Amino acid sequence: MIEKLRKIILGKPLKTSDLHGEKLGILWGLPILSSDAISSVAYAGQEMLLVLIPMIGVAAYGKMSLLSGCIIGLLLVLMLSYRQTIDSYPNGGGAFMVSKENLGNTAGMVAGAALAADYILTVAVSVSSGVEQITSAFGGLQPYRVMIASALVILLMIGNLRGIRESSKVFGVPAYAFILGILILIIGGAIKLQNGYIPKEPNFEKPLGAISLLIMLKAFASGCTALTGVEAVSNAVPNFKDPSTKYAKTVLLILSMIILLLFGGTSVIANYYHVIPSEEGAMLILIAEEIFGHNFFFYYITTTTFVILILAANTAYTGFPMLIAVMAKEKYAPQQLSMRGDKLSYDNGILLLSAVSALLIIGFQANVTSLIGLYAVGVFISFTLSQSGMFIKWRRERSKNWHFKAAINGFGALLTATVVVIISIAKFEEGSWIILILIPILVFLQMKVYVHYVAVKEQLKIKGSEYETADLSKLEYHNKIIVPIESVNVASVRALRYAKTICEEVTAFTVVMSEEEGKIILEKYNKLNTDIPLVIKLSPYRKVVEPLIRFIESAEYDHTPGDMITVLLSSFVVRKWWHALLHGNTRKYIEKKLLKHKHIVVSNMPLQLKDDHYFQKHLASKR
Amino acid sequence: MIEKLRKIILGKPLKTSDLHGEKLGILWGLPILSSDAISSVAYAGQEMLLVLIPMIGVAAYGKMSLLSGCIIGLLLVLMLSYRQTIDSYPNGGGAFMVSKENLGNTAGMVAGAALAADYILTVAVSVSSGVEQITSAFGGLQPYRVMIASALVILLMIGNLRGIRESSKVFGVPAYAFILGILILIIGGAIKLQNGYIPKEPNFEKPLGAISLLIMLKAFASGCTALTGVEAVSNAVPNFKDPSTKYAKTVLLILSMIILLLFGGTSVIANYYHVIPSEEGAMLILIAEEIFGHNFFFYYITTTTFVILILAANTAYTGFPMLIAVMAKEKYAPQQLSMRGDKLSYDNGILLLSAVSALLIIGFQANVTSLIGLYAVGVFISFTLSQSGMFIKWRRERSKNWHFKAAINGFGALLTATVVVIISIAKFEEGSWIILILIPILVFLQMKVYVHYVAVKEQLKIKGSEYETADLSKLEYHNKIIVPIESVNVASVRALRYAKTICEEVTAFTVVMSEEEGKIILEKYNKLNTDIPLVIKLSPYRKVVEPLIRFIESAEYDHTPGDMITVLLSSFVVRKWWHALLHGNTRKYIEKKLLKHKHIVVSNMPLQLKDDHYFQKHLASKR
Repeated sequence: MIEKLRKIILGKPLKTSDLHGEKLGILWGLPILSSDAISSVAYAGQEMLLVLIPMIGVAAYGKMSLLSGCIIGLLLVLMLSYRQTIDSYPNGGGAFMVSKENLGNTAGMVAGAALAADYILTVAVSVSSGVEQITSAFGGLQPYRVMIASALVILLMIGNLRGIRESSKVFGVPAYAFILGILILIIGGAIKLQNGYIPKEPNFEKPLGAISLLIMLKAFASGCTALTGVEAVSNAVPNFKDPSTKYAKTVLLILSMIILLLFGGTSVIANYYHVIPSEEGAMLILIAEEIFGHNFFFYYITTTTFVILILAANTAYTGFPMLIAVMAKEKYAPQQLSMRGDKLSYDNGILLLSAVSALLIIGFQANVTSLIGLYAVGVFISFTLSQSGMFIKWRRERSKNWHFKAAINGFGALLTATVVVIISIAKFEEGSWIILILIPILVFLQMKVYVHYVAVKEQLKIKGSEYETADLSKLEYHNKIIVPIESVNVASVRALRYAKTICEEVTAFTVVMSEEEGKIILEKYNKLNTDIPLVIKLSPYRKVVEPLIRFIESAEYDHTPGDMITVLLSSFVVRKWWHALLHGNTRKYIEKKLLKHKHIVVSNMPLQLKDDHYFQKHLASKR
Repeated sequence: MIEKLRKIILGKPLKTSDLHGEKLGILWGLPILSSDAISSVAYAGQEMLLVLIPMIGVAAYGKMSLLSGCIIGLLLVLMLSYRQTIDSYPNGGGAFMVSKENLGNTAGMVAGAALAADYILTVAVSVSSGVEQITSAFGGLQPYRVMIASALVILLMIGNLRGIRESSKVFGVPAYAFILGILILIIGGAIKLQNGYIPKEPNFEKPLGAISLLIMLKAFASGCTALTGVEAVSNAVPNFKDPSTKYAKTVLLILSMIILLLFGGTSVIANYYHVIPSEEGAMLILIAEEIFGHNFFFYYITTTTFVILILAANTAYTGFPMLIAVMAKEKYAPQQLSMRGDKLSYDNGILLLSAVSALLIIGFQANVTSLIGLYAVGVFISFTLSQSGMFIKWRRERSKNWHFKAAINGFGALLTATVVVIISIAKFEEGSWIILILIPILVFLQMKVYVHYVAVKEQLKIKGSEYETADLSKLEYHNKIIVPIESVNVASVRALRYAKTICEEVTAFTVVMSEEEGKIILEKYNKLNTDIPLVIKLSPYRKVVEPLIRFIESAEYDHTPGDMITVLLSSFVVRKWWHALLHGNTRKYIEKKLLKHKHIVVSNMPLQLKDDHYFQKHLASKR
């Protein structure tokens, strides 16, 4: 039943060979890898205003432009830094691998934890912001925003479980449409001003007073969310056509220019159109409303902004499961997370991402301003580690021009490290503390998981010289069989017969609650006319496993330590799932207990039962 | 860990031989078996007033006395009826067995379902009423009543899982204390009136108007809850000393007289002291307050009423699990419900009762008036079936005086059937519909369960003549072994060696996702220097079970249909519970799938892993 439902929702399975899709050029590589980065235009500027306006009123717009300038500077440094990463890691230089290789395992684990946290927040923030855009345009939807956001996460989850691929070209179109939309907004706004339009001046509530450094830093920290996603290109180098590094570097350059244009442009426009963003009105939508009224362009901008934000969330659906799978393959995460499902997607990773981001959305009521406090710390930690890793790499390799290259990455690392400190402090109360506590916990767990997997691997490994001694033909176990029976019935007779087949030394074993019960079972057993001895134990606690283990370990059971003992359980298999509820799980319980003991093999011999309806008549006959 | 917690909460296990407790005489039999019946004095009268007062104001008290008279009449008929049941069923004549024997399986199932529903309601109503008593005396506790009631259910659950026994004499004391308390209330009230005290007359809200028949019937239905529990004595005949039927009949007679006294007495007293019960004030407590003020007697009555109500709930903790266990033994309920736990209590039944009654308490906010709508229908259905069963029995047996005996039980059946109709109609909207829908559903489920168990039993049974053909020495299976291996490691080598021990025809089997992977594993395997063939299958869907089953069923695998095929799974057992989370459950999944196929035996050969800390050094060495 569940199997069927699964098929309907998720479609048919795919083969492993379907894995490799088309390679990307610039035309499609750019939009496909950029949605996370460019979509932040929808919230980064607005969140700066939301920090500044209550403090300094109308002066906020000027300060925002100033801070946007700083952030664009940071962007350019990052761009240069990451172009070098692309050159050095043509197979994809995610922060996790770069840090692990150059800075050691612990740095890798920190980067992994930081990135994981940020992918989750990318989903939560992007979806919440997407919903904010449409509820700004359609106010009636406001009360349902948590519901809409949760539904979108579920849709993303189902879509990704079905195996939609980010690399599909159809995902490139909305990025161009969004870029076009924002350009129309900027140009349209400029023309309107040119034509002598004087924007309405809103009533600012009395500002709280002068601006402090902390407030500026808080606004800056909010604005830094504009840079999340720029690392996507360097992770995806192998997805490009040859020469892949060249294409990737070009795409990164163009992407940076586009962010510069959109982020800078909207900052400038906001400086003229003094809209006051709030939970009910997203900045871009308010500006579009003032410039265009409710005409086609207004709805065009609303729609494309919404779509690009959802696509940004979707990039996390590719990035997060892949990151976690890489970590799992390196033994830092449960191996289930590295297994591909029917649709070649990392199903468990997708489910995990959906669950945690949906919880965040519900917990923070899909409020972008609340979520943004947690965001960006993780990204900048991973930036810092990745750039530091590159810096160390140059110093170690001492290749041509290494001083220059090291300087760029070193400067990048220093700058992003500073931003980490700024965000951590400025946004501490707003939520960065959660991430700062979470990362060490995740690192600790990764260590525990790593040690466990190594422990398992070491114990399973056959060391070189052991292959000789492992010679299977030479060594054989001495095996004896015990068949616990509940009563003398068809299933137990089958089990005894099978036991005889595979081994000479068979013992039947049963547990009874009273002497009489023992007599009855012995009488029946004797009718079987067999030479297999039956051991009957009184079990006042009505337990099976304990008396059985006591018997095996006792002198009464004639065996040498080191003998292999097979315990053969006869059971039956029912036809319907609810029938299983009617039978307890004694078999599983016994199996679980016995498997903990050395030198015990547990065999299950099932009897497949017929369907109940053959026996319906019994009900009628007794009624 | 869970095991330890279990021990602390539940104490040490008991032996089966501890099961039989002391036999009861009249002195202790009376109070122990009466708590359910006498405790209803705490709510039956009050609930009648709650129906009547809003309709007819002060006239309600007179009508309540009238209705109480009818109910006492009903009590006397029931008493006579059940004395005959005691004589006929010295081993305990529960409604389930009496109906099943005399009216057939379906009637038994209906009685079982009705009784089960009513036991659950006994817990919910008694606990809620108990909490109502103490929140009436200590108003500050009012907001916590749902929490207190739930906590009491949990305490009752733990107590019963620990194996407290209703038959313990200590449970007899509160019944006498309660009876004494109510007598003090009645006598104290009478004396106060004698001394010329004129009770305060409360301000009645304007009554809604004249009384209708439906309102009278509603009040009567509420009052009938006073009779729940009178069947307890006839169920418990074997618990009495010899001559047990004589003792039981005497106890039933005395019990009826006590109910008559307490229920009649409080009705009369309420007729003078016009208190208005409500959610905040239970009738008995309000009367006690007016008569005694806040002196010792007031707290004595509050306390004993509370205690007797909790004990009444506790009787359901003996009755319900025993009823369900009897039904399970007769194949009408899942057999897990008939298994005694460590403490010789029917743990599953206790858990089920606690869960459902806690849900009812929370759902109905521990409100007695709401819960009472569902109560009593079930009891009266079981009364009717039990009396009808007795009537049929007399007619069938035609023993001495059978006309007279049949007349008594027939009259009882007729009367209780009428009450069933009255309650069903009068309380339909208030909740009896829930029970009327629930009972057929439960009967349907019981039928399904019954047919399933019969189907299983029939298929397991060795018919007389088959014992000869079952001769174990004659027939042996032809057995072959397949050992699926994930890689060439210590666990798989052990498994292959064991396979060789028990069988000549061994095949190793592995699934790979690519040709290269296959080459690597084959190379390693060849180093083992074994003659066991290795079958390698490409599995693009990364599945194990399906290719394995396809292989077994294919011509490639040389075997005759009917051969037994053993699939030997090598697995490893981890030390800590959380380690299990790191390994998925491929083994269990494979086992489950394979066990559905005929002629397949699944064996598990575990490797017990060492603790991780032996391998901690690997983390350090790589950092």
